[in-house]
Amino acid sequence: MNPNPCSPDPRFDAALRAKIDAKTKPLGALGRLETLAWQIGRVRGSLTPSLNHPHIVVFAGDHGAAKAGISAFPQDVTWQMVENFLAGGAAINVFARANGIELVIVDAGVAHDFGARPNLVNAKVGTGGTASYLSGAAMTAAECEVALARGAALVEELAAAGCEVIGFGEMGIGNTASAALLTHCLTDTPLAACVGRGTGLDDAGLARKQALLQQALDIWPARSNDPLADPLPVLTRYGGFEIAMMAGAMLAAAQQKMLVLVDGFICGSAALVAARLAPAFLDYAVFCHASAEAGHRAQLAALGVEPLVSLDLRLGEGTGAALAWPLVRAAGAFLNEMASFESAGVSEKL
Amino acid sequence: MNPNPCSPDPRFDAALRAKIDAKTKPLGALGRLETLAWQIGRVRGSLTPSLNHPHIVVFAGDHGAAKAGISAFPQDVTWQMVENFLAGGAAINVFARANGIELVIVDAGVAHDFGARPNLVNAKVGTGGTASYLSGAAMTAAECEVALARGAALVEELAAAGCEVIGFGEMGIGNTASAALLTHCLTDTPLAACVGRGTGLDDAGLARKQALLQQALDIWPARSNDPLADPLPVLTRYGGFEIAMMAGAMLAAAQQKMLVLVDGFICGSAALVAARLAPAFLDYAVFCHASAEAGHRAQLAALGVEPLVSLDLRLGEGTGAALAWPLVRAAGAFLNEMASFESAGVSEKL
Repeated sequence: MNPNPCSPDPRFDAALRAKIDAKTKPLGALGRLETLAWQIGRVRGSLTPSLNHPHIVVFAGDHGAAKAGISAFPQDVTWQMVENFLAGGAAINVFARANGIELVIVDAGVAHDFGARPNLVNAKVGTGGTASYLSGAAMTAAECEVALARGAALVEELAAAGCEVIGFGEMGIGNTASAALLTHCLTDTPLAACVGRGTGLDDAGLARKQALLQQALDIWPARSNDPLADPLPVLTRYGGFEIAMMAGAMLAAAQQKMLVLVDGFICGSAALVAARLAPAFLDYAVFCHASAEAGHRAQLAALGVEPLVSLDLRLGEGTGAALAWPLVRAAGAFLNEMASFESAGVSEKL
Repeated sequence: MNPNPCSPDPRFDAALRAKIDAKTKPLGALGRLETLAWQIGRVRGSLTPSLNHPHIVVFAGDHGAAKAGISAFPQDVTWQMVENFLAGGAAINVFARANGIELVIVDAGVAHDFGARPNLVNAKVGTGGTASYLSGAAMTAAECEVALARGAALVEELAAAGCEVIGFGEMGIGNTASAALLTHCLTDTPLAACVGRGTGLDDAGLARKQALLQQALDIWPARSNDPLADPLPVLTRYGGFEIAMMAGAMLAAAQQKMLVLVDGFICGSAALVAARLAPAFLDYAVFCHASAEAGHRAQLAALGVEPLVSLDLRLGEGTGAALAWPLVRAAGAFLNEMASFESAGVSEKL
């Protein structure tokens, strides 16, 4: 399911550049919007690219390690927030509605029986959440493969139904801890710089979280120290079901030539996995915002990417992707709708 | 037409804070969106604030000094771009359409006869643009008053028709030069730090622009050196009709309890004038983006404000305000639509 690099045709690139530069504005005056338009044209392989049926898919999963006290909130909040998503009252519901985004909620492995629910995709990899990486691997290799494949299959269905741009979000008490471990292992950033307050730990809680995560690293001496090595053993050891499913979904989305909206720190850890598995993934990815969670900067730096906005968000759920979507949509509209100097009869630079 | 500070009632503020903090998210996890929601609630004086009928008003005007070679584009581009606005092909048209914003185009004093045009508001203060500040004052005191009053009257009409949030944009070849002079005088920033490349001057052009603007300062030894002094003499001397009209419009919008979306460097110079005339104006203003034009940072620092996004824009027309509007709208929706821990049955922090 690995994507190819986008637009390998230099003639197409030249035509796209010419179209952007002929718009009625000083050269480069729309800054990041022009860079985005360039990326959108190349991802979609068109000088008049469409970005129809935007979706955000929120993957929820529970973490065995959450019971050890790595979060400021109880584990039950994962399923309670899924209920909040289904009822339409969470931040991601509000932002998706405000910005015309369809929302899909996926149970990747929440430790709760929701029963059959019309608006919840049951893709549970395990019924009790992951195992705790404080005593072994969070998942089996088989579980990790299943999670990646289910994420990919879901995106392929959406692609078949016409979705051309997709963002991802997550919910899982304890998942900033998972993301911190992944970021440490896949970027070679010191652990302390990867661990943050998550949903709001105080200083003592932060120290405790950091000590537990160091322990999780210490009990797995077999792990590779090469941040560019195969990321799957690391994902299997420390990941969450929702993170693995997102990584699979991201790769499939790029393969389907969708533009991929990457949210903050947890999504970023899935994007790290995706980029390590297939560097071409980055051609398709828009890093939507700089999270306030420690460790996100390390991810962005390791990938050499610049986020679109910086709003001090640290909520997850895909909220940063939902908020950034109108900027992306505007960049597409710029490319498709704005007049050229010639068509508008406007004089060019002296 | 000076606005009052908003929400002087501490009980209202406490209720607003409580409503924001009870939302189903970790405290403060929505960062700038929460700050925006707080501002929107206070500006509109409501725990369920509406922001109906968003408008962007683009004021166009010509500058006598433009003929001296302070811009990379010929002066005719001002009227040509007004035609582009009227035809719907400019960046601001595209972004306003994409984000559901009504656009109003105002001739504040373009050196061109448009004839009677259904979608152009004729508010011309002078038929030939301003006089050149390289040989005297750009406008008479009476012209400046007329411009301020016409901007205010226009906003009052929109308020009466139901507009609750308003952004401003501008078009005027030469107006980064005007804005640079205003910024220098009203913030006490060295001229060199206020002068930028505008629509794309090269190094020689930038040096020439800077020398001409220094000359404009030198031939007016009577000006006050106090950046907090009455800004009207400075506006009269160096302003454009479009800048003066924006300043009047901004003050009236705040007085009408509209939320005011401030675009980049030129709009920022009008906001500087508005804030010097009535510091309470800042309660109502959202500084939408950090412009790539030199000097904008000085304005923001002098006003002690932090822009919402930073996208390397340097186009004007109100494009930054149009692009930021969905973030503002989302902040309003957050306050109005998102569930509380209690209403959603979600457990609170341990």
